[in-house]
Amino acid sequence: MSDHSTPSEPAPPAAAPRVGIVMGSRSDWETMQQAAARLDALGIGHEVQVVSAHRTPDLLFRYAEQAHARGIRAIIAGAGGAAHLPGMLAAKTALPVLGVPVQSKALNGLDSLLSIVQMPAGVPVATFAIGAAGAANAALFAASILALDDARVREALDAFRRRQTDDVLAHADPRQA
Amino acid sequence: MSDHSTPSEPAPPAAAPRVGIVMGSRSDWETMQQAAARLDALGIGHEVQVVSAHRTPDLLFRYAEQAHARGIRAIIAGAGGAAHLPGMLAAKTALPVLGVPVQSKALNGLDSLLSIVQMPAGVPVATFAIGAAGAANAALFAASILALDDARVREALDAFRRRQTDDVLAHADPRQA
Amino acid sequence: MSDHSTPSEPAPPAAAPRVGIVMGSRSDWETMQQAAARLDALGIGHEVQVVSAHRTPDLLFRYAEQAHARGIRAIIAGAGGAAHLPGMLAAKTALPVLGVPVQSKALNGLDSLLSIVQMPAGVPVATFAIGAAGAANAALFAASILALDDARVREALDAFRRRQTDDVLAHADPRQA
Amino acid sequence: MSDHSTPSEPAPPAAAPRVGIVMGSRSDWETMQQAAARLDALGIGHEVQVVSAHRTPDLLFRYAEQAHARGIRAIIAGAGGAAHLPGMLAAKTALPVLGVPVQSKALNGLDSLLSIVQMPAGVPVATFAIGAAGAANAALFAASILALDDARVREALDAFRRRQTDDVLAHADPRQA
Amino acid sequence: MSDHSTPSEPAPPAAAPRVGIVMGSRSDWETMQQAAARLDALGIGHEVQVVSAHRTPDLLFRYAEQAHARGIRAIIAGAGGAAHLPGMLAAKTALPVLGVPVQSKALNGLDSLLSIVQMPAGVPVATFAIGAAGAANAALFAASILALDDARVREALDAFRRRQTDDVLAHADPRQA
Amino acid sequence: MSDHSTPSEPAPPAAAPRVGIVMGSRSDWETMQQAAARLDALGIGHEVQVVSAHRTPDLLFRYAEQAHARGIRAIIAGAGGAAHLPGMLAAKTALPVLGVPVQSKALNGLDSLLSIVQMPAGVPVATFAIGAAGAANAALFAASILALDDARVREALDAFRRRQTDDVLAHADPRQA
Amino acid sequence: MSDHSTPSEPAPPAAAPRVGIVMGSRSDWETMQQAAARLDALGIGHEVQVVSAHRTPDLLFRYAEQAHARGIRAIIAGAGGAAHLPGMLAAKTALPVLGVPVQSKALNGLDSLLSIVQMPAGVPVATFAIGAAGAANAALFAASILALDDARVREALDAFRRRQTDDVLAHADPRQA
Amino acid sequence: MSDHSTPSEPAPPAAAPRVGIVMGSRSDWETMQQAAARLDALGIGHEVQVVSAHRTPDLLFRYAEQAHARGIRAIIAGAGGAAHLPGMLAAKTALPVLGVPVQSKALNGLDSLLSIVQMPAGVPVATFAIGAAGAANAALFAASILALDDARVREALDAFRRRQTDDVLAHADPRQA
Repeated sequence: MSDHSTPSEPAPPAAAPRVGIVMGSRSDWETMQQAAARLDALGIGHEVQVVSAHRTPDLLFRYAEQAHARGIRAIIAGAGGAAHLPGMLAAKTALPVLGVPVQSKALNGLDSLLSIVQMPAGVPVATFAIGAAGAANAALFAASILALDDARVREALDAFRRRQTDDVLAHADPRQA
Repeated sequence: MSDHSTPSEPAPPAAAPRVGIVMGSRSDWETMQQAAARLDALGIGHEVQVVSAHRTPDLLFRYAEQAHARGIRAIIAGAGGAAHLPGMLAAKTALPVLGVPVQSKALNGLDSLLSIVQMPAGVPVATFAIGAAGAANAALFAASILALDDARVREALDAFRRRQTDDVLAHADPRQA
Repeated sequence: MSDHSTPSEPAPPAAAPRVGIVMGSRSDWETMQQAAARLDALGIGHEVQVVSAHRTPDLLFRYAEQAHARGIRAIIAGAGGAAHLPGMLAAKTALPVLGVPVQSKALNGLDSLLSIVQMPAGVPVATFAIGAAGAANAALFAASILALDDARVREALDAFRRRQTDDVLAHADPRQA
Repeated sequence: MSDHSTPSEPAPPAAAPRVGIVMGSRSDWETMQQAAARLDALGIGHEVQVVSAHRTPDLLFRYAEQAHARGIRAIIAGAGGAAHLPGMLAAKTALPVLGVPVQSKALNGLDSLLSIVQMPAGVPVATFAIGAAGAANAALFAASILALDDARVREALDAFRRRQTDDVLAHADPRQA
Repeated sequence: MSDHSTPSEPAPPAAAPRVGIVMGSRSDWETMQQAAARLDALGIGHEVQVVSAHRTPDLLFRYAEQAHARGIRAIIAGAGGAAHLPGMLAAKTALPVLGVPVQSKALNGLDSLLSIVQMPAGVPVATFAIGAAGAANAALFAASILALDDARVREALDAFRRRQTDDVLAHADPRQA
Repeated sequence: MSDHSTPSEPAPPAAAPRVGIVMGSRSDWETMQQAAARLDALGIGHEVQVVSAHRTPDLLFRYAEQAHARGIRAIIAGAGGAAHLPGMLAAKTALPVLGVPVQSKALNGLDSLLSIVQMPAGVPVATFAIGAAGAANAALFAASILALDDARVREALDAFRRRQTDDVLAHADPRQA
Repeated sequence: MSDHSTPSEPAPPAAAPRVGIVMGSRSDWETMQQAAARLDALGIGHEVQVVSAHRTPDLLFRYAEQAHARGIRAIIAGAGGAAHLPGMLAAKTALPVLGVPVQSKALNGLDSLLSIVQMPAGVPVATFAIGAAGAANAALFAASILALDDARVREALDAFRRRQTDDVLAHADPRQA
Repeated sequence: MSDHSTPSEPAPPAAAPRVGIVMGSRSDWETMQQAAARLDALGIGHEVQVVSAHRTPDLLFRYAEQAHARGIRAIIAGAGGAAHLPGMLAAKTALPVLGVPVQSKALNGLDSLLSIVQMPAGVPVATFAIGAAGAANAALFAASILALDDARVREALDAFRRRQTDDVLAHADPRQA
């Protein structure tokens, strides 16, 4: 059961990505594109890849082992059901791993949430809300990490937050279409 | 984050074990000893080892990769909380993997159960009840697999089942101490 | 309340089936056909039958009592709600019984899951995920049992697992349709 | 897996019992004695027996098949976890079956409750609260059935209800010891 | 807050009904008609009425107080959400009360189920499955009570059960349309 | 099943109480005394009484019908399990009814919470947290209602809130005993 | 992260509103309009505004601080998911705060309910049912508070309750369209 | 309801702390000391303070507004029940906020978890496991953030992870005391 020989390392992007977005299945993209969209809007380079904990475990390990050297500063990992991807990435890298529970069919993502958040002491996964809101917030949180020593990201993040505050204030009456 | 160099393969037992019992933490032994006790009673050789998905991921992969060649016919894996051990073993070996959800502190093992049982299509984990009953039953189930082509195990298993039936029938009045 | 006299034993298949797929209701077929499809793909002979724990309890007992003699090596049982079929089969046969919780209407299969997995010590049911994923995985798990002493099944199973790994690696970018 | 030959029919009581109290395990007696105590207090003859759905399935069937002829008018069945006893009794007899979910260790009886109450259309089990309250109420409910054509039971039941009302009214101030 | 003066007692039916079907809201009829249909099929006279615990509490009390004298032998009560109707009927009559949890919008009937089944010791409500299956089974259970001293109902009930067994046996292959 | 004739109206207190604290069972007092203690501390006259929805339904109706005329301005009702007391009071009076879910044995008060809070549109119950915190907060909320036109209560409430803020600020270091 | 400078205080309404309806997002209006509709029907002046705990925290504080002086007597706050709006309003004002859990996408409002109702002792939020029923009931509960010293509201509320009782009684047969 | 005038800003520590640990109540310290202990072990300066969202909302806002300027790089916030502290801090600062659900009495921390993790899109809180494991992991995660541009922290973190791996490998046999 080995997938070591398969050449599937992500190609080096034009500008080296600082955030990796991975997900357990192609169908998770509907959710995880929210993360990509937010990073795009904030001007943060990122890469996107399907990495299945259960179907491509060797790729998972390789991804985690090489991420830091490739310049990745945070990994956003989305998965549903018995969602092992974020936790196993965190087992293999000391980089910040941000887990997004994808809404599952039968249990609506409660299984995904518990599988991701209930990590034992020693190996942390930062967990966000079930579904699209969680994907968006994982991206914003990754930005808040990068913003600690990147003034440009900090300004973009602050601007985003001001804008969303202004949007609420500008449309305070919900009865108006 | 690699533990490849550490020499921790289980020592070869006197009689080569046919069942491997692994668990994510030493504290899981209180639960998992039920599995060992049942295998002992049925005369089935087994080995016991702590293998942590999150703290020793490389050992986990090595254990799964080598189990078949070492003569293991089924792996019983107990874990609690975000219980990734059974599912990751199943990702790395086509041997039958039997998962035992260990009762967790806050959520009483509901998290362990969902993390183990809700595997995606393609990589199965046979899941048993939360806690000691699940550990015992995983052992009995492993016996039922071995019994398919081992008449001695089959007889031991049948005898066990007859005995437990007889025990109920012999003490049918619950009011008697 | 006896259904002993009704002649409904499954007809002997052309090639004697090694796996029995039973389900509590015709409506469970939508889920359970995933198990049949996987066994077909792996070339494993199987039989399919509705056996209701509550409406045909005598058939259930007869099925369990005769399965071993008929050459069945594992029983896959799907049921929803108060899903008693897998557990009662396991009470009547020492063969491996694999339970599939069918997604129920009100509680989404959480009732099915708990009714199947929470068996008391002494009578094991190997439980899989709620719904179609669980049905598929029960079939793959049955194959992993048969593979222990059937090299052809082992090769088919290994090929299936390699193929699903390759599929992920070949479509690693979720943004491509 | 047959227990047909074991002679364990309940001995005929002095006065033929009208209610059968069965339970899946001796340990359920702590809960189910509440049912026996209420029936005693109401002067309703009953019998008590351990009948395990999973360890003594043949006894279960025999019990259900013979209950009506032995004069039983209602069966109270207590079980925990994957609690199949009440539902399988109901599958084998058209007598009223009253299910009591015994509080389980990990899931506090939520598993027992769902396993008993979520029966499919066609085979009813009347379900009561988890634990001792449910056992007591199953007995009171059995009394309400018998009271339909037994004036003595009716009077005993009405007296019990008046008494419990009076008890509340007589101790309306919870601050007094 | 009194509705005593409103003349809404159910009109006396042609043949005095033996089962009362009540429900908290008109919208519950979609579920509860399953109870009526089963009673019709078994030839058991019944009445149907909306009785809201919260909007017509006085009617609820009057209904419970008069049911026995009007010849009612069992009350089937369906309600959703904070489902107080069955329990309050049981508080006011010693007749058997059968509760049906109607599937609610947000919590899918888990709230309805717990509100009905978790009665305190002293006042029993026999509870059935959430939704249509529970409504059907409450009717069948009411029949099992009446069957205790009504041979005609007993025969109708036995015939129904035989028929549903035969239906399963006659369509044992789920792959046939 | 009537308890009309029993004379158990609460005796008129020295100063007419403005808040009624009722509970379904004497054992609820351990929780509900938190409500009484807060009202005492705020100088708000109140009365305390056991009123069981299921064992004393007539008293419940009488209590609700007479509360307004007796000067009660809010009713705090605590109950556990199938907690019908708050909702049935609200069905019988237009006074504000404040429900406190008492922690239950098996389900920890989740049943109590859902039975109280999930009222249908038309009959509101203001619900508070499970257990002692909910009882305390129901009292504070009753005070906030009375404070709307009682300056003395307003001042007492404001003082309480300032004090609890100061308490946190004065002990901001949790490491100091 | 400050929104102090943004001028978004609600404009003074023609007749000073006595109830404030706020919600965390424009999308909550579908639920919260039920509250507005009931207040309209009862002739109770109210205002409606989006106030987001997370996107406009300063507005939230300002709203709470100024509400009493502006004549508001109760605040109805609807929010979903991690619903912090009602609790944070209650932290900043001693006015009665009524929380409405809006049904969320993944967890159907169970998250909203627990986030609102499980307040610690000291800061109460009166919580109502998940969704539209809760919004309607929060309005009726606000009316019950105002009715304590406003005879006109009291009459309107009593009339509403009589009418809803009469509606049930007038359509007691659910089989009639 | 203002606590602006109270002078409770944390005193400037000897070495300016880079991580703030706050908690809603003194009783949360038993859990949150795990975070402090891990930071101590890694040599990361931190401060500890009780900040109650509900009892000291102004302090909460002030803390969040000033944290960045004071040199704080991440805030670890622990709270139980309706746990609003992490989310409201995140509403007021763009710094990374790490939420720890403290185990609550009735619902075992499920309420705390959902209140913290289910944040709406736009304002992220990184959430960790319920209880002590979550507190420890929040500290390790904060370290992983600081390690991105602090080689000393990176080495300390790597050493910690190697040590915990070695600990498992060195005690692989759970049967040895």
